[in-house]
Parts: sequence; C-alpha cells; structure tokens
Amino acid sequence: MPQIQNKSTLIGNAESRRDRQARKLALGALEAALGAADPIEVVKSAIVVEDSNLLVSQHKFDLSIFEHIYVVGGGKASGKMAEALESRLGNRISEGLINVPYNSGPYSTKRISLQEASHPIPDKAGMEGAKRILELVGQAEKNDLVICLISGGGSSLMPLPRSEITLEDKRQVTDALLKSGATINEFNTVRKHISALKGGWLAKNAYPATIINLILSDVIGDPLDFIASGPTVPDSTTFGDAIEVLRRYNLWETTPQSVKTLLVNGQKGLREETPKNEDKVFKKAYNAVVGNNRSATSAACSSFRSSGLQALLLTSFLEGEARHVGTMLAAITKEVVASGSPLPSPCGIVVGGETTVTVVGDGKGGRNQEIALSAALKISGMGGIAIASLSTDGIDGPTEAAGALADGQTLSRSLEREMVAKNFIDRNDSFSFFSELNDAIFTGFTGTNVNDVSVIVVM
Amino acid sequence: MPQIQNKSTLIGNAESRRDRQARKLALGALEAALGAADPIEVVKSAIVVEDSNLLVSQHKFDLSIFEHIYVVGGGKASGKMAEALESRLGNRISEGLINVPYNSGPYSTKRISLQEASHPIPDKAGMEGAKRILELVGQAEKNDLVICLISGGGSSLMPLPRSEITLEDKRQVTDALLKSGATINEFNTVRKHISALKGGWLAKNAYPATIINLILSDVIGDPLDFIASGPTVPDSTTFGDAIEVLRRYNLWETTPQSVKTLLVNGQKGLREETPKNEDKVFKKAYNAVVGNNRSATSAACSSFRSSGLQALLLTSFLEGEARHVGTMLAAITKEVVASGSPLPSPCGIVVGGETTVTVVGDGKGGRNQEIALSAALKISGMGGIAIASLSTDGIDGPTEAAGALADGQTLSRSLEREMVAKNFIDRNDSFSFFSELNDAIFTGFTGTNVNDVSVIVVM
Repeated sequence: MPQIQNKSTLIGNAESRRDRQARKLALGALEAALGAADPIEVVKSAIVVEDSNLLVSQHKFDLSIFEHIYVVGGGKASGKMAEALESRLGNRISEGLINVPYNSGPYSTKRISLQEASHPIPDKAGMEGAKRILELVGQAEKNDLVICLISGGGSSLMPLPRSEITLEDKRQVTDALLKSGATINEFNTVRKHISALKGGWLAKNAYPATIINLILSDVIGDPLDFIASGPTVPDSTTFGDAIEVLRRYNLWETTPQSVKTLLVNGQKGLREETPKNEDKVFKKAYNAVVGNNRSATSAACSSFRSSGLQALLLTSFLEGEARHVGTMLAAITKEVVASGSPLPSPCGIVVGGETTVTVVGDGKGGRNQEIALSAALKISGMGGIAIASLSTDGIDGPTEAAGALADGQTLSRSLEREMVAKNFIDRNDSFSFFSELNDAIFTGFTGTNVNDVSVIVVM
Repeated sequence: MPQIQNKSTLIGNAESRRDRQARKLALGALEAALGAADPIEVVKSAIVVEDSNLLVSQHKFDLSIFEHIYVVGGGKASGKMAEALESRLGNRISEGLINVPYNSGPYSTKRISLQEASHPIPDKAGMEGAKRILELVGQAEKNDLVICLISGGGSSLMPLPRSEITLEDKRQVTDALLKSGATINEFNTVRKHISALKGGWLAKNAYPATIINLILSDVIGDPLDFIASGPTVPDSTTFGDAIEVLRRYNLWETTPQSVKTLLVNGQKGLREETPKNEDKVFKKAYNAVVGNNRSATSAACSSFRSSGLQALLLTSFLEGEARHVGTMLAAITKEVVASGSPLPSPCGIVVGGETTVTVVGDGKGGRNQEIALSAALKISGMGGIAIASLSTDGIDGPTEAAGALADGQTLSRSLEREMVAKNFIDRNDSFSFFSELNDAIFTGFTGTNVNDVSVIVVM
C-alpha cells in the first residue's frame, strides 16, 4: 500500500505539541486517501466471491453459468488490478491481457498476460496489445464473462485506430485537436469515431458475452465515456458530429485523407456508427467505478473520524487555480477557529479534485505544493493547524514530491532561512520552498491515480 | 431596510419550478444578509436600555452614573447608526457629532449633529469635523460616557493630521505608500503616527470618560486597529517603525519635511507616542463589533433554516480571485448533488468576505458578478440550483448592480441570445452578461458595508 515515506520528519518539524498533532492527523488522513486509491485494495473491496456468486457493487452474477472468464483492460493501475482480480477468481479466469506502462511491473499474475506499452504517447506495442484484446473478447460467447480493468492512462495504453487509419494519422488528428482549443467533449467525439476499441467498441466486440467493467477513475466526476474514452460505454455522438468538430476548428483541410474518408463514409452510412445507448450490447454491460476521488476523500474523512475529529467532505470536484484554492482553504480554516463553522474544532475538512497552475515563473513546483504554499501565507501565526495536499499518483507537477504540508509556523520557519514565501509562489517555486523546509511530502510513484486530495486539520 | 429591487424578475427568470424555488431561497438569504448589515438594525440589536442600565454585548453600564453622554464617530453608515442610537437613548444624549459622506442623508437625529465630508478622498470639511470631534470628547469628564460610532470609510471621513502637518502633506505620504507595495500593516504604522485621531488617539482624548465604540466592520476578520485605523484601539507600533517603513520603500527622501520632523522628533522622545496597550485609557474603553460579515452570512444561514433547508457557513474570511472562488462554489454544489456532502439537499451554503478581480479585459463587471458567471460555466444543465453573490453596499465593482444570480440554465439562456459566457468572463464583462439576462441583482446604494455574501442553494 502506498505510504508517506518521510512522515516522521514531517511530524518532527512541528514547533508545538498542537502543531505536531495537527500534522500527524493530516498525514494520517492523506495516507488513508492513498490506501483507498490502492488498485489492489479497490478491486478486492469491489469484487467478492460468495458461494458461486460474483458480487460487484449492487450486482450479483452467478459464476456457475459462465464457461469462460476473460480479463482485459489497460491503464497505469490495471496491472495491480489484475493481480487483485486473480486473487479473487484464480483459476476461474480462462485467459487475459492487460496493457500496462513500460517498467511498471513486475506483476504476479498467472492467468492474465501483461503487455507493456508507451504512455502518454501511444506506440505500436500498445496497438498490438489492443488488437489482441479485441481478438480475445471477440472469442467470448453468450455464456462467457469479460471483465475489463480500466484505469487512468488506459486511453493512450490501448490505442487502436479503426481499420485503414494508421497510428500516425490518428495521432496527427488528436494532436491538432488538443492544440485547437476544442473542448474535451469535442475531442472525444472525434477520437471515438476513429478508434476501434474506444466509444463502446470493446463492449460491442465482447457481445453476446456479459461484460463487467471495473473502473479506477482519474477523471473528476467519473464521466464513464471520458475515462479511457469509454470502451464499454455507449457513445451519443455521430460521424457527422466528428466532421463538424474538425470543421469548427478549421482542421478539416489538414486532416489526413484516411480519416476524412472514414468519417465521410460513416456519415453516408457506409461505415458502422459507434454503439449507441439503445444497442442491446449495453444490456449485458455493467460499469462499476471501484475507486475515485470520492472514495479517497471519504477515506480521509473516515480517518479523521476514527481519530475522534469531526470531518467534512466539501467537494471531490475541485477545480481552479491552485493558489486561489489554497487561499480559500485558509479562509475556511480561519472560520473554524473564529466561529466553529462549518465544524467546531478539533476537526478535519477534506477537498479533492484537480486544480491547475498557470505557470508564470521559472521555479519548480506543482499544484498541491502551490495550494500548501498559498495557504501557508494566510495562516501564518495560527496554532494547531495543518493544511496538506497531495497528488495520489505521487508525482506533483514536474517534481519528485507528491505534495506538501503547511502550518501556522511555515512562514516564520521560512523567514529564519531568509526565504520570502511570497517570492516563491510568484516564481511557481513551491517545491524549492517546501523541500528546503523538509515539508515536501514524498510517497514515490504510487501506481494509482484518483487525482488530488487536500486536508485541513484544526485542533 | 435594504432590499433586492428586482426580486420578482429574478425569480421569474427561472425555467422550472425547482429553479424558481432555488432562486427564491437564494435571494431570500441575501436579503436576510442585507438586513443583518442594516446600520439601524445592528445598533438597535447591540444596544439595549433596561431599567437604568445600558447593555452592550456582554457589558452592562449603569446609566445613572453618567452626567453627560457624547456621541461621535464617522463612516458611511454612521449617520444611520446615530439615528438608531438616538432612538435608544433619546434625550440622555448631551451632544454629538458624526462625519458622514456628502449627500448621504437626510438623517433624523436631533441631539447628534452631522458633518458632511468627502470620501474616499479626505477634505477640509472632514478635517473640520474631526477637529470638533476631538474637542467634544476632550470636554468629557470622569463621569461622562462617550459613544463612538465607526463604520467603513471612517478613516477618510475623519482625517486629522497631527499638529504641524497639513492635510496635503499627509495625503502625499499615504498616496506614496499605497503605490509603493507596502502592506496594509506598514501603511497603518505610518498613518497612525501622523494622525491626531487614529491609532488610539480618540480614546486617549476622551479619557477619563468611559468610551464605548460600536463598530460596523467592513474589514475581513474585524482587526479593530484596521477599521477606521483604530481610533479607540491601542497601537503597537512606534515612530521608529514608521520611519523604517518609509525607508524600506525608498520614500524617506521624498517625504514632506513636516512629516520627517514629526517622526524624527517622535523617535527622539520629543513627541508623544501613540497610546499603547498598557495605557490606562484602554481600561475604560470598550469595543463592540455590532455588525460584520459573519453576522450577515449567519443571517443568510438562518434564513435558509427557517425555510426548512439545512445550512452551512463555510467562511466569512473569503479572499482570492473571484472567478476561482466561483469555480470552487460550483465544485461544492456538485458534491452536494452527487453525494449529499457537505450537506444533503435541500440545503443552503454560505460564504462571505471579499474577493478580487484581476482585470485583464475592457468589460464592465464586479467581484460578485464574476463569481456568479464563473459558477454558471460549471453548473450548466443542473436543475434546482442557484448560486448568487452580492456586495452588501449595493455596488459591485464599477457597476450599477450589487451582484448576480446564476443557475443551471444561465448558460443555455445566454446561448439563445448568442452570448458566449466564456468570452464575457475573459473580458471581465460580467455585468453586461447578467444585465442582458436580467439576472443582475439590484439593491441601490444600501448605506452599509460588511463586504460580500455568496450563497448556494441546492433543492
């Protein structure tokens, strides 16, 4: 299970007993969040075999009716998810293939093969794996079960352009769209129509088998058709919509001929549309989000409660510029101290999601460290407070740290080292700031991602 | 009592029954907040005469021991505060003088005179009034009571440079400091040392009389020595500190000679320091914040509760860039809908404080309207939601509106009018956006200011 490696140092940096306690509780809550995002734990909690039944969320599947169980999928955490699935189903699994990032293993699976591939830029290995995944689910018959394990990065790890389109052509289109200012919805409209696996095609290929899709979500709000571009989810858009998007952003002229031909033929009804909601395929497809930002932030709340603190989850949909989010967390902290609202102290308040940093300086930092730094600027001098934030994948921006921890003494400790916090945030240099104070949080690469978690503790 | 003038239009803009209900509750909560900031109401609630006792907050004063009661003060709401005080104490008041903005009256006071003066740029009339105020409290003896009524704008409405300094010299110094990047603490350090009324001098002059200071606070967190620069509050800074601030920002050379002489003589001990905490003066001085952002935001919460909604005050210390605050309010709204956290619906969530807008476009807008616009971008399509924000002084930025109201249909309604919301926020043109939709909130000038209040309603 992923842990905070420098926990005792972080706690030891406290300058008072109350600060020490606040730091300890904040870090405990962040570790609970990491635990709830652990791919092995989430699959084990989500999947239970009882008698000969497979229980997934509210659904119960009679295992005795399935002749074969195939396991497929891809993503940064999907290898670990496969290990957990084998620990539940063992030899019941007939065969499987999961695409995972290069050097992310080793994995202890026996029945499920692993195909290493490139991320975030797709490569031939990923395409090869995706093709074999489609072939595998294509074998599945009516009395078979396909379990799909999807996690963040699944989209680039399972690239499979439709028929005549090359990986290079597909990439050219998606690159151009990314730079065009198209919304993520528009982007996905095009991507789903030039892919052979995304946009519901994986489910379509698995039909008439039953398909269970276990999703570890790294997209805020868990829109199922966004996560890995929805390989098991109906698509509501059309070839015509895809053409319109490319025209809207003046990309049609420069679109590769192979893509144009596919889309135009599709619009004429000469090529099959992406599977739609009413398709019978989806009557046998079950999607279960087994882990997401909410499960991580909820675990942080539970950690607080089991330590005797009241706790409140404010949101798992956090967006916005990191430094302003930090300022707002500080504003909430002050209200707790001043009026006992939204909760009386001692308490823990949790927010999750993913903020952005508009880089204006040449410093080294990340979203979470910038949240902590901007909060530090506003809580200076307060006692018994800790505000900490981390990225659940262990990598905050282009830094070695996962996040950082601030308290009411952070500013005075930085001044002792002749560091002016304001200058560090102005330069987007939050990593330099916190690593100098030994208040950067290190977890190493955690092998999972359910975005970011920030916590406030008021003793 | 200040009210929302276009309430029925705003409610009528709803496109569904649930939206209508959400809008109505949001506006009701904002009106409750305005009511709690009403200078007449706050003074009447804070001051009670019972038998021959005057009750102020936790303090009880035996009125029978006071020979005279003098009333002084200044600020944008202080005229109305004086009316309320007369309604409580009537003929018990011997004499009084309050500095109010030009054309802010008429006021119905009989015992308390009103001196009109300029705001925010101080003028001679304000100085004349401030001088008379000092003379008036100077008459007060041991068995007299001075009641001081302070509200936002009090500082510029009661300008009184120390002895040999002219108003022009004082203004030159404060202008230079404002442009220098000095913090508000540094700014106040200098200002208090060149003023004859601020920085505790009013209380010092009133000694040995008892002094009660009733404060309607327009500064986040109510730091008593910031509000109107603390005329009845001890000052912890010194002449030496003031000189250091001017040197730090390279302003010493260009500081007028009269100011330099005063500060240098002060540092040598030749001029009296501002009254310090241990001064006996403050043993007879009582400060009571009678209204502030917390009382306004709490009133909004109470309004929700009395309508059967659960309610939560998140903070009355809100800061940060308006558009990111709006995004965060939307993120909290989504969590309520998705998981019933931090409160299950139907509920109302309240934040207060004062955000900022970094102006990059040439549009017309304000902090509160930008909060509502950025929230609108994120809640599009949701039903039964309202997010509304207003400035309690009725003037949001350089616009005629006090704020604005957004719901899940705001974006689609704007698209019908061929307005692209994103472009309006990019141009800081929130007023144009909401006035076109008839969703700007109008109250007119309310005659009070306890900063901004924002509310979320989820039905």
